[in-house]
Formats: sequence, structure tokens, C-alpha cells
Amino acid sequence: MNLLLLEPSEISSEGEVVLDGRRARHLIDVLKVREGSVVRAGVIDGPIGSARVVGVDADRVRLSAHLEGPPPPRPAVDLLLALPRPKVLKRLWAQLAALGVGTVVLTNASRVERFYFDSHVVREAELRPYLLEGLAQAKDTRVPLVRVAKTLKPLVEDQLEAIFGDARRLLADPVYERSAFDALRASPGRVVLALGPEGGWTPYERDLLERNGFFGVGLGPRTLRLDTAAVALVALAHEARRAR
Amino acid sequence: MNLLLLEPSEISSEGEVVLDGRRARHLIDVLKVREGSVVRAGVIDGPIGSARVVGVDADRVRLSAHLEGPPPPRPAVDLLLALPRPKVLKRLWAQLAALGVGTVVLTNASRVERFYFDSHVVREAELRPYLLEGLAQAKDTRVPLVRVAKTLKPLVEDQLEAIFGDARRLLADPVYERSAFDALRASPGRVVLALGPEGGWTPYERDLLERNGFFGVGLGPRTLRLDTAAVALVALAHEARRAR
Repeated sequence: MNLLLLEPSEISSEGEVVLDGRRARHLIDVLKVREGSVVRAGVIDGPIGSARVVGVDADRVRLSAHLEGPPPPRPAVDLLLALPRPKVLKRLWAQLAALGVGTVVLTNASRVERFYFDSHVVREAELRPYLLEGLAQAKDTRVPLVRVAKTLKPLVEDQLEAIFGDARRLLADPVYERSAFDALRASPGRVVLALGPEGGWTPYERDLLERNGFFGVGLGPRTLRLDTAAVALVALAHEARRAR
Repeated sequence: MNLLLLEPSEISSEGEVVLDGRRARHLIDVLKVREGSVVRAGVIDGPIGSARVVGVDADRVRLSAHLEGPPPPRPAVDLLLALPRPKVLKRLWAQLAALGVGTVVLTNASRVERFYFDSHVVREAELRPYLLEGLAQAKDTRVPLVRVAKTLKPLVEDQLEAIFGDARRLLADPVYERSAFDALRASPGRVVLALGPEGGWTPYERDLLERNGFFGVGLGPRTLRLDTAAVALVALAHEARRAR
């Protein structure tokens, strides 16, 4: 935990915070705080600052927080993911939040099993702790927005602009030889990366996405599992934006 | 499984292969092969070619393999990893093999727990199936070489050249601001990336590595978990080499 994340409701109007439970244990056992210790803290979806420990007892930590100013900007990389297997998705949430993503839309595809949508890791209340874990790791407060769109066609034909605005649309699939990184470097603004299921998008799905503005790119000759590809692509997207 | 990987000993001098077990089940149940089907196949650490199915019965597949020529080149990216938690390392093997790494050396560091070295996922026979899974995914046959060096100082002072040759040495740690990608782009030959434990290398360890030719680089302001950082860095390393 490199950033202590606080819900707005946990902070009194005077900036006082009383923690017990997991975060208190981490402060006491791992960071070994005592009265006077200062830790980096942030308000979920709000500003980043610091919190000074004003008291520690057996399992409770009282802090005085100084958190002002604007929240950090929302990461400019969005994802459109064909819903992965729940086990894979569960592992992915903290990694994506740590790397920095703005919005993640989970959608159906021909090669996605329908029962994946019944998993708890697509429900906002249950995936949120994983997102917060990634943010606390990466020192960010901006919780990625997660949406579920159970049908690909209406999503792609009618809802993209409302969700992603005018973000550059890229479609990553092993069938394309054009370099993802080159396309990312040529895209100065927001970008949305569409990643298919294991087994790939079908030709119909690729055609649907292409007709709706997605530009097909590849990640080289090695076929990667969805979670590896997602981490690699988001890292490349951030690097391409930095290196412009 | 995008490539059927075969041990050299499984192939007769006439190119005949008889499979049962997990690979046979995958061919029958997932790829739904029948007599005459052709699948992409490769010899572990050897050439890639094809194999034609000459017979299928209940749980056994007979194939005729055509595998000639040189093996694919060994990936030019090596890793020096402070040994991660066994759970993290176990997940990482297939991802690293899929992305493409040449040699992985696991070493100790001040913030590594000694008992991690007792885990089965550092033993070659037990990690090999994970590496093969990644290779079968990425269509490669070159099994990454894995070595364990339980003491950092003699490794860094005496053994680096024997293991990594004249590979460019980079040390990734959040304390450095210089861009990992820029340094990778400036390194045309082999590269070895040193990644610290959770909690980072100590100042003593960074100094030891720097004095022995490692150039410190960062991955931006977000602190990443070791597994996320490893996947991101290896992806960036391959991209930097491609984009030169």
C-alpha cells in the first residue's frame, strides 16, 4: 500500500479519520506507524495529500488528513474487453487500476461463455476492492469506471460515442500486422483499446468494429493470453503518450 | 494451445508421434481434430513445423510430424528478478515465456523472504510446465533458461558476464526517473532487466548493481506490482527493439 485511500465519508469536516480493520492493520503491522508518522493519503476520486497519525491503539489508528486541491487526471486509456474468464478478470482488475485506465467496458462476443456474466467479478461492488488495491499500489485515486454491455452490436453501433467520446479506436487482434505502438504514438488524445476473447474476435465482430471506426493493430507474432496482452497494451499506450 | 509442443524423445525417426493425456485431450476436445487434420507443431528447443493427424481413438492421437530447420532465435531479453512471492511467480512463468525471455535469474534481496526459495515454483522440473504453456500460447519452442542465485553479491560481482554475456544491464526501480523505454531503444543488442522485490531494492543493493554496470531506469510515476512491472517491461523491451 503506497497510498492510504479514504472514502470521502470517512473524513470529518476537520480532517479527522478513524480507521480500524484492514487498513489500520496495514498501517500498524507493515508501515509500523506511531504517533507523529505521516503517510501519503488520498480521497477516492479526489485529491492526494498526507495524513498524520495522531493516535494508535491496539487495532485502531486516528489520523489528521490534509487533502486539498484537484484530483489527479483520469487516465486517457480506455478498454473495451470481451469478457474474460472470471479467474483471469479477477487478477486483472488491480493490474489495470495500477497501470491506469479511465473506463473499462466488458462486452459479449461469440467466443465468450455466457455464464461469465454471472460471476461476482463483473459486479461493481465486488470488483471495487480489487480496483482500490491497484490504486493504492500506484498512488492514484481515480477509480476506473466499469460498465457491462451484454450485447456487442448495439454497444458498437449506438453507444461508443457516449461512453468513449472521440477517443481514437484501436482493435488489437493477432490477425493484424500493423503495429499497435505505432498507431498509439500517432494518437495524441484519448484512446480506447478493444481486446478480443481467447480464440479471438470472429470475422463478423472484427468487421463490425472496423465499420464503426476501430483500426486493427497487432502485438507482434507471439499470440498472448488476454491478461498478458491487456497489461502489455496499456503499458505501451502510456509509454506512447509519454514518448510523443 | 496455438502450437503443439513435442519432446524430441516423443518423435520417432520416421516422424511418428503418439500422444495421450492432456495434449491428446486438447487436440480431440478443443481443436476437434480428425484424421487428416493438420496442426502447427514444434520440438521443444527445436524447429517449428506441422503435424498431420493419422489416427484418433478414444483418448489417443497419432500424428506424422514434419519439423525441420533451425529453431527460432532465443529472445534477446533476459531478466534478473528478486525472487517474488511463490503465488506471483507461479502466475508469471507462462506470461514471461509467452512474451519471450531468454534467461531468467532468480536472486535474493534484502526484502525477499528466505522461505520463498523453498517453493516448488523455483524448481526447474516443476516450473517447466508453466513455461511450456506460455510457449504453446505464443507459438515458440525456446524454453527460457531459469537459474537460481541465492546470494546477490557474488552473482552481481562475479557471474553476470558468464550468464548474460555483454547484454546491456538495466535496473528498474521507482527511484529512477530516466525512462526505461528510452534506455531500451538505445540498446540494440541483448538486454538484461533487473527488477526488485516488493518494497524495492535497498540503497546498498542499488549501489551494488550500479557499480556493476546496471543503469537505473523507471517506469513512470505509478508504482507497479512486480508481476505487472515485469510484463510491462518485457513488452516495452520487445517493442523498443522492433521500433528501432
